[in-house]
Amino acid sequence: MKTRVAILGASGYTGLELARLLLRHPAAEITALGTRSEESPHVSEVHPSLTGQLDLRLEPLSAKQLAERADAVFCCLPHAASAEAVAGLLAEGLKVVDLSADYRLRDVAVYEEWYKVTHPDPGRLASAVYGLPELYRDQIKQADLVANPGCYPTSAILALYPLLKAGAISGEGIIVDSKSGVSGAGRTPKPAFHYPECNESLSAYGVGTHRHMPEIDQFLTEAAGNAVEVIFTPHLIPMDRGILSTSYASLAKGTDTGGLLEVLREFYRDEPFVDVIDTLPATKHVAFTNRCHVTARVVRGRAVVVSAIDNLIKGASGAAVQNFNLMFGHDEIAGLI
Amino acid sequence: MKTRVAILGASGYTGLELARLLLRHPAAEITALGTRSEESPHVSEVHPSLTGQLDLRLEPLSAKQLAERADAVFCCLPHAASAEAVAGLLAEGLKVVDLSADYRLRDVAVYEEWYKVTHPDPGRLASAVYGLPELYRDQIKQADLVANPGCYPTSAILALYPLLKAGAISGEGIIVDSKSGVSGAGRTPKPAFHYPECNESLSAYGVGTHRHMPEIDQFLTEAAGNAVEVIFTPHLIPMDRGILSTSYASLAKGTDTGGLLEVLREFYRDEPFVDVIDTLPATKHVAFTNRCHVTARVVRGRAVVVSAIDNLIKGASGAAVQNFNLMFGHDEIAGLI
Amino acid sequence: MKTRVAILGASGYTGLELARLLLRHPAAEITALGTRSEESPHVSEVHPSLTGQLDLRLEPLSAKQLAERADAVFCCLPHAASAEAVAGLLAEGLKVVDLSADYRLRDVAVYEEWYKVTHPDPGRLASAVYGLPELYRDQIKQADLVANPGCYPTSAILALYPLLKAGAISGEGIIVDSKSGVSGAGRTPKPAFHYPECNESLSAYGVGTHRHMPEIDQFLTEAAGNAVEVIFTPHLIPMDRGILSTSYASLAKGTDTGGLLEVLREFYRDEPFVDVIDTLPATKHVAFTNRCHVTARVVRGRAVVVSAIDNLIKGASGAAVQNFNLMFGHDEIAGLI
Amino acid sequence: MKTRVAILGASGYTGLELARLLLRHPAAEITALGTRSEESPHVSEVHPSLTGQLDLRLEPLSAKQLAERADAVFCCLPHAASAEAVAGLLAEGLKVVDLSADYRLRDVAVYEEWYKVTHPDPGRLASAVYGLPELYRDQIKQADLVANPGCYPTSAILALYPLLKAGAISGEGIIVDSKSGVSGAGRTPKPAFHYPECNESLSAYGVGTHRHMPEIDQFLTEAAGNAVEVIFTPHLIPMDRGILSTSYASLAKGTDTGGLLEVLREFYRDEPFVDVIDTLPATKHVAFTNRCHVTARVVRGRAVVVSAIDNLIKGASGAAVQNFNLMFGHDEIAGLI
Repeated sequence: MKTRVAILGASGYTGLELARLLLRHPAAEITALGTRSEESPHVSEVHPSLTGQLDLRLEPLSAKQLAERADAVFCCLPHAASAEAVAGLLAEGLKVVDLSADYRLRDVAVYEEWYKVTHPDPGRLASAVYGLPELYRDQIKQADLVANPGCYPTSAILALYPLLKAGAISGEGIIVDSKSGVSGAGRTPKPAFHYPECNESLSAYGVGTHRHMPEIDQFLTEAAGNAVEVIFTPHLIPMDRGILSTSYASLAKGTDTGGLLEVLREFYRDEPFVDVIDTLPATKHVAFTNRCHVTARVVRGRAVVVSAIDNLIKGASGAAVQNFNLMFGHDEIAGLI
Repeated sequence: MKTRVAILGASGYTGLELARLLLRHPAAEITALGTRSEESPHVSEVHPSLTGQLDLRLEPLSAKQLAERADAVFCCLPHAASAEAVAGLLAEGLKVVDLSADYRLRDVAVYEEWYKVTHPDPGRLASAVYGLPELYRDQIKQADLVANPGCYPTSAILALYPLLKAGAISGEGIIVDSKSGVSGAGRTPKPAFHYPECNESLSAYGVGTHRHMPEIDQFLTEAAGNAVEVIFTPHLIPMDRGILSTSYASLAKGTDTGGLLEVLREFYRDEPFVDVIDTLPATKHVAFTNRCHVTARVVRGRAVVVSAIDNLIKGASGAAVQNFNLMFGHDEIAGLI
Repeated sequence: MKTRVAILGASGYTGLELARLLLRHPAAEITALGTRSEESPHVSEVHPSLTGQLDLRLEPLSAKQLAERADAVFCCLPHAASAEAVAGLLAEGLKVVDLSADYRLRDVAVYEEWYKVTHPDPGRLASAVYGLPELYRDQIKQADLVANPGCYPTSAILALYPLLKAGAISGEGIIVDSKSGVSGAGRTPKPAFHYPECNESLSAYGVGTHRHMPEIDQFLTEAAGNAVEVIFTPHLIPMDRGILSTSYASLAKGTDTGGLLEVLREFYRDEPFVDVIDTLPATKHVAFTNRCHVTARVVRGRAVVVSAIDNLIKGASGAAVQNFNLMFGHDEIAGLI
Repeated sequence: MKTRVAILGASGYTGLELARLLLRHPAAEITALGTRSEESPHVSEVHPSLTGQLDLRLEPLSAKQLAERADAVFCCLPHAASAEAVAGLLAEGLKVVDLSADYRLRDVAVYEEWYKVTHPDPGRLASAVYGLPELYRDQIKQADLVANPGCYPTSAILALYPLLKAGAISGEGIIVDSKSGVSGAGRTPKPAFHYPECNESLSAYGVGTHRHMPEIDQFLTEAAGNAVEVIFTPHLIPMDRGILSTSYASLAKGTDTGGLLEVLREFYRDEPFVDVIDTLPATKHVAFTNRCHVTARVVRGRAVVVSAIDNLIKGASGAAVQNFNLMFGHDEIAGLI
């Protein structure tokens, strides 16, 4: 019997991407689409690319209604709104993958400093499981609530965690220079994402202020065993999807390119979705997949680590399905091939 | 002495493009930038690409104030708003190039049917000069008010007018299949022009309902000497700028590709900005220029005429500068090389 | 047990797309990748996006070797080369989906006129089955050799065949104005497809000379019951994938937009991959799917029919998988969700 | 009287861009176009975008022939080929702006290590003037031969030179993470620049091996007064033109964002083409101009400096025209507005 799943906040890009993946999933059935709007449009009006493939309306559904129709909920609401909904969903016995930022940071003070809101459900932060299966597979299997990672942090943590853990690089002065396609900015039209403004252009944004910075810090600190503070610079690239992160770190001990690659290969040996490659990654090679390509080089005594993911899949909806698979005992790669 | 020019409605793409061209113009000086907003931002805040090049603020200026600062006004306001402003500008003795649609159609009933507004200045319609120098150069030289052509009509009329005039094609059943870059949609963010929606996509829009259809009709009717009604289909192309129109018409008499090209070459022999070419046009070859590339083929007994322009230059601001040059006795190509 | 499939000519874009679809197919297994080159690179060197997903080398394989490893062959060789290989494959008892143009045209003289080569296997032309399941599903089920349709013809035939068949439009003077993304041009670098040449540009090409013109003629002639000759104009659009065709035809009798849509809806009522929609199609809504979106309008007494497909999927590899499913008795939509 | 100029190696993108700028130049006249090929195509065949604007053929011209027709030569040949030509041109009394890499590095050993060729004219290296007017304006005015800077070095040196010179940042561990549009790769079709390969993709390349690394080193070393070795990582971005460099450096003393900006503003106070801005640069804001936008931030105790240029203009042909203006006593901004 298929697991019945609902998508809350189904009108955005991560909601659409989840629908696409789950329609293809042999052990999941989409049974409800939630929205915070009062209208109830058919999904094909909201997402014309789902025409003929999913016959549901987006509806303003209560936790109780969701519990009647589904076993699992993918929550794609904005931060704060998400945590407000999650408590109710868990109380109804639903398992939840939360794609917002609400349960990623363990320290409520850090959350409130960076997100500028009072956390609606602070009690659950310390125990929330971070949905990066490459780090926390066993905990995810046991979890009722999984905090799906941010897109940039996924690319940075997968690149740097193993090297820090193995002591191959130092946690001091790490720089993560990331580049993302525009879908990462969401579906709401804004001047910066108006086609003639960002097409054929390239810019840095949020220098020193992006909310994914403390999320990266938190997990690299865990890997290093002492406080890591990265300098994280995101850039907007004129393409739909894809993140490439180029990370720079001091070598902790005399190692070479081969040594870095060996650490990465060892760490990801059994991972279904991370490929340590010899060539330099391109986002196109992972676009529309749940995969991460990563490589490393030593240049003038520093480690340069380059990683690529599809921000909407491995950086959001694909990771969410991977987490869902682990939580419900499905094949980890189901729906993700 | 330089001609002092003002740009009304300077915050959009045609305003920006006018500023770029006029900054390079040896006989013009930008002396005022008008806006309908109450704020008065510096032009470099509105158009960062003009940083260091133009030290003016956008201001809400009256006709009187404009007349004190300028000799000519380029009016880039939306339709209806433009006609409301123009009467006042002319009354102050200013010469005006109007980039809106307000003075292009000669019949007020047609205007009001297609634009769904009451025309604010209907008395001036019959006498307004249509700013296509290839057709109306002499009238433009004498005019105080020039109606700058629409972008799609420019591409279609330059392609078909000479052939109709010469009797090489029939006015019956003409089809104009046009494709435009996204800047033609203006600078206001809307879902359809949100980068991830229109990037990597291609669509038809306004099939049978686009307002440029009666504008094309009007001038092809003039060329043919009897009523022409075209079927005009615009398409949105994922690129910044450029229009390519592929037009289809019945041959009025037995002519071949060479014959069509000869008619076009003869008509445009002395034109500084129209190139009749043997190869097939590409918008990139006219991008950032005031030129039109046009060619023709006979295929299975029909004429296929392909024309390319930059929608923001030959289709808007470049044509406006060309008209300005004619109105003020400057070299016709000044600022347009 | 899974059907074992081989891809011949696996280094191009249709080969890559086939591999992606077949990896996801529950009843197919890729067992061989053929190439005409002497080298035998691993597929992940040729297609880095398949890294970690398919552990095969591209090899120069004989028909006999292919027959040992596979039950079905997808042949992605260039025209003429393909027909040379097909006879051998069929002789070995393999079933073949041929993605080249070699078996699409029924008249060898037409083939040789347009393709400028002697057909290597003319005897099979008259009996070959054209792999458009919407027209020839029953024949495809029985076929050992299916000629997979061209990308442009798929978009044009799906738009016009039902309307001609129903007598809603006339076969006289049909115009098909098509626009395609650049992947349709294949994987070999050429000046016209060098990124800075075709990015941010839009052009017509092959006006009156494109090889897909007689292919469209052939099937529209069948629908109309008398000779149809279309005027077909392809255009190159700066995007990866997608075809939008805007077709124009005279109305055969007084019908309106609703009438045209009704004919299309009736014809495609049970089709799994064709959606007759009320809104205007956009290629993005069918990108990465095997679907076709189509709509129609009456404009000034003419039919305007707009259809959109993904040129690499419904226009090539997806259609090939759909044909494969029919030939082998698999669920028609397997691997195509 | 106008200065007569020739462009050698006129068939590439820098040649085209030079022609565009010089056609607009009030004091220059293009009198010859050189090519190494034996054919002599009309420039409009090679560059359709110059149709109707320049009536010259590309010809295989000797130094002597060039000296008869021109006063100045812009040399756009590949490295090594350029130096082979330059000696002859200078011997004929021509002034030369060399857009190749041949005279940028002062140490022939460094040149030969990175460019893997024997330098054809090593004697001129030590005395060659590097054509970055912001650093060497006075020397350029006196020079007969100017080595036009590389595109990446221009963006990096303009960002970092003033800060190093002022002692605001340390030369230790500088990282330059640069991103460039595809035109930087030149006009020769190659798989990596085939539209469907690089469109919608983003990749790093030449990590630790790019030839612009020692060029950046050389001038930052000069600024710092001691050996600087940067880690330089270029990335390929799916757009035509533009370079954005994000550079990271340790602060040499306790300074803040305001302090960094002040150093930059002071250094560029009188520069016509460098804008120190408060907001973050976007390449679109400098596209098709000779300008550089630059800003700086202190993030977690490090300097992050972001600079943007048009790689074909300020990074190549525009800088070349600026140098030409200085060498011939023309207004420095002539042709560059």
